[in-house]
Amino acid sequence: MTDAPLPSTETADPPPCFQAHVFVCCNRRPDGHRRGSCAAKGSEELRDYMKARAKELGLVGVRINSAGCLDRCEFGPTMVIYPEGVWYSPKSRADVDRILQAHLVEGGRARELMLSERDVLPPKV
Amino acid sequence: MTDAPLPSTETADPPPCFQAHVFVCCNRRPDGHRRGSCAAKGSEELRDYMKARAKELGLVGVRINSAGCLDRCEFGPTMVIYPEGVWYSPKSRADVDRILQAHLVEGGRARELMLSERDVLPPKV
Repeated sequence: MTDAPLPSTETADPPPCFQAHVFVCCNRRPDGHRRGSCAAKGSEELRDYMKARAKELGLVGVRINSAGCLDRCEFGPTMVIYPEGVWYSPKSRADVDRILQAHLVEGGRARELMLSERDVLPPKV
Repeated sequence: MTDAPLPSTETADPPPCFQAHVFVCCNRRPDGHRRGSCAAKGSEELRDYMKARAKELGLVGVRINSAGCLDRCEFGPTMVIYPEGVWYSPKSRADVDRILQAHLVEGGRARELMLSERDVLPPKV
């Protein structure tokens, strides 16, 4: 017998702190910047709405955070939900409601609002 | 024969946009707040250093972002790396170097800097 911890205890990651961790890009660039920015497209108001609605829905284990530039500005407002790594581009409160219900309540996807690998950035000039 | 897409194409998530997505809490509370805050503990400088070092190391597929309050203020400065959902509490540039090397370069863990499920918040009073 030994009192050494089992290897699985030593090497496993801790359980997730949040079941779903949402990051909403709230980067703001000056008006007229060629890439635009999520905040200039209304992301801060959508973040506030999402936080308030998630609370009203009583979602447990879900955290909604602001983030700096997520570098997909052209498709903004953008958000990403981890650990899935699924990206969305909500344009309105109704879109946020759809993401909350389809993804965070039902565990599915709001596919019509998702970004994909085809949403690539334009080449740098 | 049918031209309908395969179910796997319809239901699979897109490939990850970033192989490792780091979020550094940069929330700042007023001095003297009972929970403290990561920015008050130097997180913004550590974020800047981490971004610069990741660039110098030529890390591909790694993005380092600021985030709003990650709600583990007592253990700050805090950061979380997704999709793994591994949390760290780096106190210095040397700690950031250790996380960069162990986690982002080698794909392992900087275990001595990790937060665990035992790092729980104090009860609300």
